[in-house]
Amino acid sequence: MGKSRLEAFSDGVLAIIITIMVLELKVPHGADAEALKPLIPKFLSYVLSFVYVGIYWNNHHHMLHVAKHVSGAVLWANLNLLFWLSLFPFVTGWMGENHFEALPSAVYGFVLLAAAVSYYALQQSIIATDGPSSVLRRAVGKDWKGKASPLLYVAAMVSAFWSPWLAQAIYVLVALIWLVPDRRIERAINTQT
Amino acid sequence: MGKSRLEAFSDGVLAIIITIMVLELKVPHGADAEALKPLIPKFLSYVLSFVYVGIYWNNHHHMLHVAKHVSGAVLWANLNLLFWLSLFPFVTGWMGENHFEALPSAVYGFVLLAAAVSYYALQQSIIATDGPSSVLRRAVGKDWKGKASPLLYVAAMVSAFWSPWLAQAIYVLVALIWLVPDRRIERAINTQT
Amino acid sequence: MGKSRLEAFSDGVLAIIITIMVLELKVPHGADAEALKPLIPKFLSYVLSFVYVGIYWNNHHHMLHVAKHVSGAVLWANLNLLFWLSLFPFVTGWMGENHFEALPSAVYGFVLLAAAVSYYALQQSIIATDGPSSVLRRAVGKDWKGKASPLLYVAAMVSAFWSPWLAQAIYVLVALIWLVPDRRIERAINTQT
Amino acid sequence: MGKSRLEAFSDGVLAIIITIMVLELKVPHGADAEALKPLIPKFLSYVLSFVYVGIYWNNHHHMLHVAKHVSGAVLWANLNLLFWLSLFPFVTGWMGENHFEALPSAVYGFVLLAAAVSYYALQQSIIATDGPSSVLRRAVGKDWKGKASPLLYVAAMVSAFWSPWLAQAIYVLVALIWLVPDRRIERAINTQT
Repeated sequence: MGKSRLEAFSDGVLAIIITIMVLELKVPHGADAEALKPLIPKFLSYVLSFVYVGIYWNNHHHMLHVAKHVSGAVLWANLNLLFWLSLFPFVTGWMGENHFEALPSAVYGFVLLAAAVSYYALQQSIIATDGPSSVLRRAVGKDWKGKASPLLYVAAMVSAFWSPWLAQAIYVLVALIWLVPDRRIERAINTQT
Repeated sequence: MGKSRLEAFSDGVLAIIITIMVLELKVPHGADAEALKPLIPKFLSYVLSFVYVGIYWNNHHHMLHVAKHVSGAVLWANLNLLFWLSLFPFVTGWMGENHFEALPSAVYGFVLLAAAVSYYALQQSIIATDGPSSVLRRAVGKDWKGKASPLLYVAAMVSAFWSPWLAQAIYVLVALIWLVPDRRIERAINTQT
Repeated sequence: MGKSRLEAFSDGVLAIIITIMVLELKVPHGADAEALKPLIPKFLSYVLSFVYVGIYWNNHHHMLHVAKHVSGAVLWANLNLLFWLSLFPFVTGWMGENHFEALPSAVYGFVLLAAAVSYYALQQSIIATDGPSSVLRRAVGKDWKGKASPLLYVAAMVSAFWSPWLAQAIYVLVALIWLVPDRRIERAINTQT
Repeated sequence: MGKSRLEAFSDGVLAIIITIMVLELKVPHGADAEALKPLIPKFLSYVLSFVYVGIYWNNHHHMLHVAKHVSGAVLWANLNLLFWLSLFPFVTGWMGENHFEALPSAVYGFVLLAAAVSYYALQQSIIATDGPSSVLRRAVGKDWKGKASPLLYVAAMVSAFWSPWLAQAIYVLVALIWLVPDRRIERAINTQT
């Protein structure tokens, strides 16, 4: 089983997710600055989600790069990840529509959490398929980012009911943690050769 | 005639179908749990259809993997399958919008049936193109899943007018039947080598 | 200059065009057969356009298959074709919304005409780039289908103001002419080898 | 790190951007020429943006063609470019909706400017990754088009508040400058071999 179609299909779904989120920015009728003002929270939530989908694409790209085989289990673990990512446009739009209120912010965190857990499951599924010589297993190592993120999402979900802005700050923080280039996989490849 | 563009185009269409279904989950104006409640049936129908499109992508991926050539007939059999799958967003939205009432549930079953028949036709078209040495023919074998599914869809369509929930149960059952990994094609490849 | 990205981009655009046309089938609120009835003309126009985009994808697939190089001129001739095809969702929706009335039927024909002329220009552009040994030139031959189609579209546009249904009959006729498998390119490849 | 998935993902996003812009051309209810008239400014802004996205796809295609490696920095520079391009449907729709008034025309120019600057950053990022032997660096040369465009966008943004039509004229002018085939990269490849 080759992995090229898994990559192509995932690229397609991620490309569509990242692009249709922008459709929530409905074109206003007025032509002045006042008409743009209500769009500011929607725009901010769009930027946040764009960065998150970008991070997922980036990490997915690296992970599949070192995967040797894909099994039926990997295909379904991947579809499960894509399912949760496909809810990004909805939760992004809902959070932006309601100016980062408590419940939409918490639900946004829940989808981030589910995506993170799904990504972890996909990673484990690839490692299991590749067997003892898995490059990915070595690359992942202690995976502190992967383990810390779900905890931070849970913290954000809880704090959303107390201070939605704290939740947003945590979402931005996790994004920044992941934006810092992750050299683990590149290093693991170099170590091998 | 190579099969790579057929795969790429199908991946594109399937990726879009699976993603635009989520657009039926319209962002609500309210920020409380009440605002989410009317979306529950739509969300459930989205999950069901996501799993079905995932199954089709998965099976399509396996089937094309063992196809040797694609002819003009295969291209059109594939487009016919994509046409019926392209109606998934509509019937999914209609069924969710109307809380799984009789007619929308039956029409949903009709589209599932048409997609299953189209998939079967595509399979036969590839086997005919590949000739006597077709790996796919050996892989498909008795194809009891492929033969039982249309019968179950018809049963669901009929029962929808008597008990829509029974129809839904059948749709979930068929999805579960297909979710169980299908090792026929992988086995057929191994037997050959 | 490789042709793989041209194919990939065109596949992406065609996959999106063929899929977003279905979004014009807006989910009705009612759950009975009455609710579906107003959608019948939209569904019919969707089927017609699905077949046309399928024909274009099919022919594009064959044509690029025998192209040797792509130049800057070919890239822009291809984008010009994609532009006209991108108007299909709009004219399809407009014609369906207005039950195949005169002007929408004529405008639909105009977009079909512009796409056909653009396809012809792309074909000539590839032949010019490939030079005297162009397989495509031999494959195209007298190209009676390519020459008859624009004339039939013009006939349909004119007749739309007199009898819109005659225009529709011509659109269906042209689609059927193209649906008949075109063995010219496959023959030209075989002759060569 | 291969560049094929970067190309595939970018192709997907660009294909979606160029296609969903057409969704701003909402299907009118009337069937006469009057019903089409309000769509003229939207159609014109669609044509302009289609050409711009086409130019970006074309240049992206050429640039990646000569890139040797992609690093993490290149992936993010590319996502940054895609982000600004993803705002095209919004600003195109807003400008068309408001008949090329001052503010929408200026905001349109701002997004063009941000995309141009992002493209330049991506170009520099690829050159830095490729090192001293970069074919792209030689191909880019003095890059007068790349340097003149941002200045012209700024000029258009300022003039939009004085004469929106002058701004439009500048946008058309810049598009024409880029439409003229750019032989630099093709020449650099030939020089090398």
